[in-house]
Amino acid sequence: MSNDDVRADPYPQSRVSRLLLSVGSAERAAFFPAGALEDLSIHAAGIDIVEPEDARSSDAVSLAEIAVVAWGFPRLDADMLARMPRLRLVVNAASSVRGIVSDEFWASGIPISQAGAAMSPAVAEMSLTLTLSLLRRVHRMDHALRNGIPWAAARDITRAREISGCRIAVIGASRTGREYIRMCTALGADVQVFDPYLREDDPLSTLAAPLLELLSSSDVVAIHAPATAETAGMIGCRELAAMPDGAALVNTARASLVDMDALFDEVTSGRLDAALDVFESEPLPDDDRWRSLPNALLTGHVSGATRESRARAGRIVIDEIARFLADEDLQHRVTADALERMG
Amino acid sequence: MSNDDVRADPYPQSRVSRLLLSVGSAERAAFFPAGALEDLSIHAAGIDIVEPEDARSSDAVSLAEIAVVAWGFPRLDADMLARMPRLRLVVNAASSVRGIVSDEFWASGIPISQAGAAMSPAVAEMSLTLTLSLLRRVHRMDHALRNGIPWAAARDITRAREISGCRIAVIGASRTGREYIRMCTALGADVQVFDPYLREDDPLSTLAAPLLELLSSSDVVAIHAPATAETAGMIGCRELAAMPDGAALVNTARASLVDMDALFDEVTSGRLDAALDVFESEPLPDDDRWRSLPNALLTGHVSGATRESRARAGRIVIDEIARFLADEDLQHRVTADALERMG
Repeated sequence: MSNDDVRADPYPQSRVSRLLLSVGSAERAAFFPAGALEDLSIHAAGIDIVEPEDARSSDAVSLAEIAVVAWGFPRLDADMLARMPRLRLVVNAASSVRGIVSDEFWASGIPISQAGAAMSPAVAEMSLTLTLSLLRRVHRMDHALRNGIPWAAARDITRAREISGCRIAVIGASRTGREYIRMCTALGADVQVFDPYLREDDPLSTLAAPLLELLSSSDVVAIHAPATAETAGMIGCRELAAMPDGAALVNTARASLVDMDALFDEVTSGRLDAALDVFESEPLPDDDRWRSLPNALLTGHVSGATRESRARAGRIVIDEIARFLADEDLQHRVTADALERMG
Repeated sequence: MSNDDVRADPYPQSRVSRLLLSVGSAERAAFFPAGALEDLSIHAAGIDIVEPEDARSSDAVSLAEIAVVAWGFPRLDADMLARMPRLRLVVNAASSVRGIVSDEFWASGIPISQAGAAMSPAVAEMSLTLTLSLLRRVHRMDHALRNGIPWAAARDITRAREISGCRIAVIGASRTGREYIRMCTALGADVQVFDPYLREDDPLSTLAAPLLELLSSSDVVAIHAPATAETAGMIGCRELAAMPDGAALVNTARASLVDMDALFDEVTSGRLDAALDVFESEPLPDDDRWRSLPNALLTGHVSGATRESRARAGRIVIDEIARFLADEDLQHRVTADALERMG
């Protein structure tokens, strides 16, 4: 994770003069309050911040030594790299760099960092919010009352459950999964976790259980594993069928981990409830099948999007650039190897 | 709180032979699993449990020494007391006894207990659930996605907030308020409380603030005060106006504490969001104005209704009756004086 390759470069970091900023106008201020990026000129005198309307077509990219990017930035393939001959560092203000990197990029040796650590507390809180909503059947009552269903029929007075004492299955001992476990445990939940990569000396290993055993004994299943080739479809027909009647699934990770057709059947039948922040197709079509189920709670892939999360990401980006400019080790660098196990 | 008046009675508790059970068929099993009440025969040999369909008309009430009641039991006025000449103890499995007691009842000296303590954790968890939902704007996104609004417009990516670091105003240092504060604090919230009856030596007194100051500096206001003459309308036009733009109100207590017309205006304008479990008129009419607001989250006066809460209430009822039968002090007795300060 050191940036030795950068140190060997003929252009020292102090010569950086141009920073390309391309994080989307809607969230620009959430990442970087006025003056925040400009403070980097302490490390690189006269650093110039360029914000092109569209990085795909702008000539402004050609002079950038540092690129701060987010969702929607074009993939750094051979063409894009050719357009950015001075590029020395890429910092992704968003989470995964999967959509940005390419074989050519990895071959270039240019370091890339991501601010994904900023999102974990936000995603974990969202997962907790959805967990509590499903346990208390808030979504069912809210939908019924909004649809004009009479009060007595809309009320759900016999099935609501408290999180204290509730059996929760966490799929994935990720950074987010750990945050979620910490919060659920603080509220008295009885948490178990499935993660094949959990080491024996990990404090969470005392909570580990085999997947099917875990699913069959839990009131809520919360997914916090990365979307990789290995995790694709891991919550399939058989796994969903193992969940007890009336159990709930919360997915703030990625839809690819779940057999969404099988889940749709279980939710449509009313046997399971679900809270989904992620979908097989995003943007979710206007007439998507998920939009009309009374016992599904829906949000728009926003688990990581809080004011606080954006501000944390912005600080990570700035600190990472400052480290680069001061010739220090990067702390949020992602390598091709690491990416295979990441979400 | 002792039951001296009962001790003076010519009929000792061991002579109790008939227990009237009237808690509603829908929740009967939630309060009392099979055999739970029958176990009381350890204390009163051959205790007979009578469950009339309608306590208003049934003759079965006339022999009862103990009445276990809940919502919908007729008020114990002079007429009802005349129909129950052997009544020695009333235990309310629900929360407030306000709808059951009368001047004649208090004059009779018959002790009455309530299982309200069972509900506090459930109400506090519901208030937390609604708090988190509003902070993350889950209700707005869920409503928009269900109404066919396009993905990009339904997403709310710039205003969501985390509970960690959030400023929360708690109105009322009640048992429920204290549970809510404990949970919010465990999740990192910055909680302050308003309660004119808070004593200086109360640990919560360090969190105390004047009402308007508190409201004007909070992201969420959660009401946990009792509905009394003193608290009626305490969150009025001026108090709501003091709340910052984008703040949220959570009410799991009683609607009478809030000027609901003023709140409706603030929520309709979009300046405030609200989560309401209680309403000015219950049952909420099918075409009620609250049912169609995109930024209101609605539940049907169910904050205290969880499986766990009902089971706790059932245990309190049984333990209280066992104390009575063993001639021990009651632990959940309510007096006329105490009721004036209770919800």
